[in-house]
Amino acid sequence: MAPDSTPARIDLDPRWTVGDVDPRLFGSFVEHYGRCVYTGIYEPEHPTADAEGFRGDTAELVRELGVPILRYPGGNFVSSYQWEDGIGPRDKRPVRLDGNWRALEDNQVGTDEFLSWTKRVGSEAMMAVNLGNRGTQAAMDLVEYCNHPSGSYWSDLRRANGYKDPHDVRVWCLGNEMDGLHQVGHKTAYEYGRLAAETAKAMRMIDPGLELVACGSLHPRVATAFSWESEVLEHSYEFIDYLAIHAYYEQRGEDRDSFLAAAIDMDRFIESIVATLDFAKARGRHKKQVNISFDEWNVWYNDAGEVAGQDFRKAPRQSENMYNVADAVVVGNLLISLLKHADRVKMGCLAQLVNAIAPIHTEPGGAAWRLPTFHPFALTSAHGRGTVLNTLVTSPRYETRWFGPDTPQLDAVAVRAEDGESVTVFAVNRSRESALPVEVDLRGFPGLTRVSQVVLADEDPEATNTAERPDRVVPRSVSGARVDGGTLSALLPPLSWNMLTVRAA
Amino acid sequence: MAPDSTPARIDLDPRWTVGDVDPRLFGSFVEHYGRCVYTGIYEPEHPTADAEGFRGDTAELVRELGVPILRYPGGNFVSSYQWEDGIGPRDKRPVRLDGNWRALEDNQVGTDEFLSWTKRVGSEAMMAVNLGNRGTQAAMDLVEYCNHPSGSYWSDLRRANGYKDPHDVRVWCLGNEMDGLHQVGHKTAYEYGRLAAETAKAMRMIDPGLELVACGSLHPRVATAFSWESEVLEHSYEFIDYLAIHAYYEQRGEDRDSFLAAAIDMDRFIESIVATLDFAKARGRHKKQVNISFDEWNVWYNDAGEVAGQDFRKAPRQSENMYNVADAVVVGNLLISLLKHADRVKMGCLAQLVNAIAPIHTEPGGAAWRLPTFHPFALTSAHGRGTVLNTLVTSPRYETRWFGPDTPQLDAVAVRAEDGESVTVFAVNRSRESALPVEVDLRGFPGLTRVSQVVLADEDPEATNTAERPDRVVPRSVSGARVDGGTLSALLPPLSWNMLTVRAA
Amino acid sequence: MAPDSTPARIDLDPRWTVGDVDPRLFGSFVEHYGRCVYTGIYEPEHPTADAEGFRGDTAELVRELGVPILRYPGGNFVSSYQWEDGIGPRDKRPVRLDGNWRALEDNQVGTDEFLSWTKRVGSEAMMAVNLGNRGTQAAMDLVEYCNHPSGSYWSDLRRANGYKDPHDVRVWCLGNEMDGLHQVGHKTAYEYGRLAAETAKAMRMIDPGLELVACGSLHPRVATAFSWESEVLEHSYEFIDYLAIHAYYEQRGEDRDSFLAAAIDMDRFIESIVATLDFAKARGRHKKQVNISFDEWNVWYNDAGEVAGQDFRKAPRQSENMYNVADAVVVGNLLISLLKHADRVKMGCLAQLVNAIAPIHTEPGGAAWRLPTFHPFALTSAHGRGTVLNTLVTSPRYETRWFGPDTPQLDAVAVRAEDGESVTVFAVNRSRESALPVEVDLRGFPGLTRVSQVVLADEDPEATNTAERPDRVVPRSVSGARVDGGTLSALLPPLSWNMLTVRAA
Repeated sequence: MAPDSTPARIDLDPRWTVGDVDPRLFGSFVEHYGRCVYTGIYEPEHPTADAEGFRGDTAELVRELGVPILRYPGGNFVSSYQWEDGIGPRDKRPVRLDGNWRALEDNQVGTDEFLSWTKRVGSEAMMAVNLGNRGTQAAMDLVEYCNHPSGSYWSDLRRANGYKDPHDVRVWCLGNEMDGLHQVGHKTAYEYGRLAAETAKAMRMIDPGLELVACGSLHPRVATAFSWESEVLEHSYEFIDYLAIHAYYEQRGEDRDSFLAAAIDMDRFIESIVATLDFAKARGRHKKQVNISFDEWNVWYNDAGEVAGQDFRKAPRQSENMYNVADAVVVGNLLISLLKHADRVKMGCLAQLVNAIAPIHTEPGGAAWRLPTFHPFALTSAHGRGTVLNTLVTSPRYETRWFGPDTPQLDAVAVRAEDGESVTVFAVNRSRESALPVEVDLRGFPGLTRVSQVVLADEDPEATNTAERPDRVVPRSVSGARVDGGTLSALLPPLSWNMLTVRAA
Repeated sequence: MAPDSTPARIDLDPRWTVGDVDPRLFGSFVEHYGRCVYTGIYEPEHPTADAEGFRGDTAELVRELGVPILRYPGGNFVSSYQWEDGIGPRDKRPVRLDGNWRALEDNQVGTDEFLSWTKRVGSEAMMAVNLGNRGTQAAMDLVEYCNHPSGSYWSDLRRANGYKDPHDVRVWCLGNEMDGLHQVGHKTAYEYGRLAAETAKAMRMIDPGLELVACGSLHPRVATAFSWESEVLEHSYEFIDYLAIHAYYEQRGEDRDSFLAAAIDMDRFIESIVATLDFAKARGRHKKQVNISFDEWNVWYNDAGEVAGQDFRKAPRQSENMYNVADAVVVGNLLISLLKHADRVKMGCLAQLVNAIAPIHTEPGGAAWRLPTFHPFALTSAHGRGTVLNTLVTSPRYETRWFGPDTPQLDAVAVRAEDGESVTVFAVNRSRESALPVEVDLRGFPGLTRVSQVVLADEDPEATNTAERPDRVVPRSVSGARVDGGTLSALLPPLSWNMLTVRAA
Repeated sequence: MAPDSTPARIDLDPRWTVGDVDPRLFGSFVEHYGRCVYTGIYEPEHPTADAEGFRGDTAELVRELGVPILRYPGGNFVSSYQWEDGIGPRDKRPVRLDGNWRALEDNQVGTDEFLSWTKRVGSEAMMAVNLGNRGTQAAMDLVEYCNHPSGSYWSDLRRANGYKDPHDVRVWCLGNEMDGLHQVGHKTAYEYGRLAAETAKAMRMIDPGLELVACGSLHPRVATAFSWESEVLEHSYEFIDYLAIHAYYEQRGEDRDSFLAAAIDMDRFIESIVATLDFAKARGRHKKQVNISFDEWNVWYNDAGEVAGQDFRKAPRQSENMYNVADAVVVGNLLISLLKHADRVKMGCLAQLVNAIAPIHTEPGGAAWRLPTFHPFALTSAHGRGTVLNTLVTSPRYETRWFGPDTPQLDAVAVRAEDGESVTVFAVNRSRESALPVEVDLRGFPGLTRVSQVVLADEDPEATNTAERPDRVVPRSVSGARVDGGTLSALLPPLSWNMLTVRAA
């Protein structure tokens, strides 16, 4: 398990680029799940609540996190959601059983409230339509409600509900995880491919400018992965812009070494999906290129929080993962994986935003704070914009159960800022024991000689943040990194996520 | 056609059992068909009507009949039924055309009234959802309406409609006879298997404790029998508990000999379905066992009563079979077949309960009475509870057109009472000419030496019961049977159904 | 391109007939498309408007056109139409986005208004149900609304809306062009065949006397033509009466010669569909014969009128083809093709009736007038009733790009009037340069010696009719035709449509 003695090295060349980062790569996800919405982003009784009932403290952290796009309202939730339940006077909205999550949904937050809030926190929305137990007509109606200016039944109803301007939602998911047996209205690939195609076509008749996302596999290791996509694309390729894929990772038992290398699995998943997409393009003689929306990803311990029973309570404490430093390093590494594939992964959603599987935690009536995973996300979103450079990593290897004897200890990606004035290298050292000295060849960037290093690491990899100690785990600026003769030298602490930025002196 | 001279003999061994009788084997069926509901169980103007408008005389006969479970509301009716039509204030309920039966449905009896009445007559309900022209969402809503305590839209609506407590319906049919071309929204096996699976899953999200019944073949001799089941089970096995099968028998022309042996056909049907189920279990590597709900069976003369035309009247006199003694003997024999397979047939529904294909007949504003088929059913339901013994029947043979030269004259099954204090043998003599002396080996039951015999037979096998002579055909206690040296000897009259009970002296 | 010198000749024999003309062959089509309905047939503000808001000038021209059956309400429109939007008090009807045509639909004309108007202009209706984004239930409800006398929810609602008598619509289309990728809710042949069969069955449960039309191919040259029909018929043959096919023709670039012979393509399409139908009949061991409803056909220049954008205005000027003389000759020839196949083509609909792809043009608040295509249609409808004679045409040939070197210059069909007192020959001369002398062998009709000739032709084949000169192009009676020794001799001018009628002297 000890790393070998290969020196760690990163080679870059300004001419050799992967592609530009779409800011939507740093999206997140608000599902009516657990306490993500109720007592998460929305809590009218909270001291910080705004006029619409949304928590000000949460909103501030959301802005700080940097999430240009937010997926809504599910997830599994959407597959039995009737969107009309969530509009109009709040006291007339029906209380529903959300059978999927076994929770009570009183619809106090719906489409209008969410879309309005999304703009206030500086994000755009990625809306999902219900292709579980509903179909084309409800999707057409929802597009009309959200996007048509006025003069028709649904658009005038939106105006009557107090939203004069169209919400103008560009990105729409054609259902959620329809490959999953657990999903209400699960479909075979044939059934889904057909429904997605017909619904996409009909939605575009109402608004031709939509960007549409079809469901790919809910996890890289489901038995139908890739064959699902192939058949779905046979029916829908021409009608969609993105294929959605999802992945969650967790440490199994004591095997932290494997867990720390989880991004390797994400790399492989993305690359296999790219192959599947391009095969479908060739087979169907299509001209357009379909890209990837990795619209659910995170570390997830499914057994966290309470398990909802048959009592159908509102906003149970489901999946409230109190992430630690090791989880944060993995989240940082998964972001590196997304950036490395920025030419094809155009959107991503950290799932989810608040409380449930989330980087932000809140207490009802109480505080909101950043969990450790917040930090690598916020820093990557802030500094990972620009052009991804093809990043050649040479690394010592270690052995892991999931990935075998040649698991690289180092993973990294470099992004050149849009103004060309800086290059930022995101890097993780997966070793639990050893610090890793790294050299980065910067000869292609002669003017960039001033370096800064920010590190997320801790003596205690289990450390987390709590209401009492909300800043127990935070990134630290460290000194010691330097650029000399076109080479950046830095030391990555054990089990660490690092951001190295080089600028002109 | 004359029976041969083989002595008739029944061998029993207390250690050799088939299985315990589930009381639900003696269920019946209330469909919105003909006059089963309106002027059958429900007639507010009737002198015996209770406060809810249900006939007291009918209810009394239903209790006497002994039907622990009642299927509702169809049958073919359910495949275009909108259950929401039948709830809430009666004067607001819409009048619908029941296209399937060509009748007018004014929805004065709906889910609440039926379920409430079912409890008053001491039965539980087996509810069917519409998988003809509706789907998953309507089924989820109905489960919520019936079974969720309170606090959600549909459960609160039930409470507002006057039904504070959940109806708590356990058993649900996933549509009705979806293999039938005649059915509104008929499905292919693939289509139905998929829809049944998805609907089952979604219904259990609302109430995980449901017992679910998928549609098998509507008749043993439809061309798709067994292949339908095989494909349906491929998609739905894991989601269901029972497979429903149906069979009706009638005398064709003058061929009473074949008709009297109809239970042989039922035996074979059940056994072929068991094979189909267990094959599907093996193929799918399933662990659970799916059993049979024989939820429509009876003697049925389709041309009885009036044929509904295009005038769409309410409660036409459809399928009002005025059963005779021969029919009653066959019904008794079909019950023997069900009991013989009590290990796998867990539910059964005599179709139907009142007026239409039914053991109880009523006249509007007039009497309610028992038809001859009432009697073997009521006696079997009352005395056929306990453990079915494997019953080895040796019988003389006769020739029939349907079953060939070796049709057994005698059919029988023995049930040991739950308290072990008695054994009851149900037996039919199918010969129209000859009485049949029978010996039953009781050496395994040394204490049971006192015997009683009840017989349903008549000089005139065409005899029936009418308003004027409602007790023209009734069971009679006969003497002559005796137990001697461990052998019970009895004489079964020609064309007779018999119940022989042995008890401790 | 110049015709060869073969003499043109037509042979007839009174014993050799094709079949009787069903008057429904001369139907037309009213779709909510462009200005067909609004400012076409309906314009309450117009000086000639009747009490119901329908234009009197348009109605008069419709009566003159002679259209015994009118298809309604679409066309593509129907595939997202919710028919309930168009009934009841007009001020309560919702305004919808018609995504297919990108137009605003305020539902001021709906089922009741159209069906009532249809009767006032002397036609019956052919109603289409929405099998795009709706299904069986909505179709059952619409049949009940239209055709059930009273006493049920939907029939009583019709009465409450002011229509006491049932509309009694006999002919119903099971969706529209469901083979088309452009269609909302496009289906595969399997999906559509199944849905059509189930919906047909359910509609007949409400009214067993319906005549039902399934969708065949939307154009003879779609890739799925014939294989679509074959698979659809596999599922639906037994449930339908007609198969619908559509074809539109236009002059491509300067190639008028090919365009003038377009009827050859219609002939081949019809004959291939007849083969497909009869194969399906044989394969399925069916006894009934399914015939053809050619319920959309015309000359159509798709780029005429404005192209609707995203502004969703009401009644845009879409497909306002201002037909010229050449178009009128082709329309006349297409009618000859339909008549030649009168044994199997039982219904036809000139698409459409007013303004959009139509023989009648109106201006809002202004005049209504006949376009050149009006004339051959009106004359064929008026004089093409009776029995079609098998018409043997011998013709000089010319070369065309579409049909090759042996394109016949002459096409013709003869119809014997029901009273047997006259025979009418419809004939076109496709040559742009040469008049064509024609001889018709009338020896089998010895009494018919008096002949009249009506011609549609013009020095300027581009001539059309405008508001200022509404009668610039009209048919003319010409002299010169004569019957001599059992032979009718006539001269067909270049690029002309002709009607030659012979009567007893």
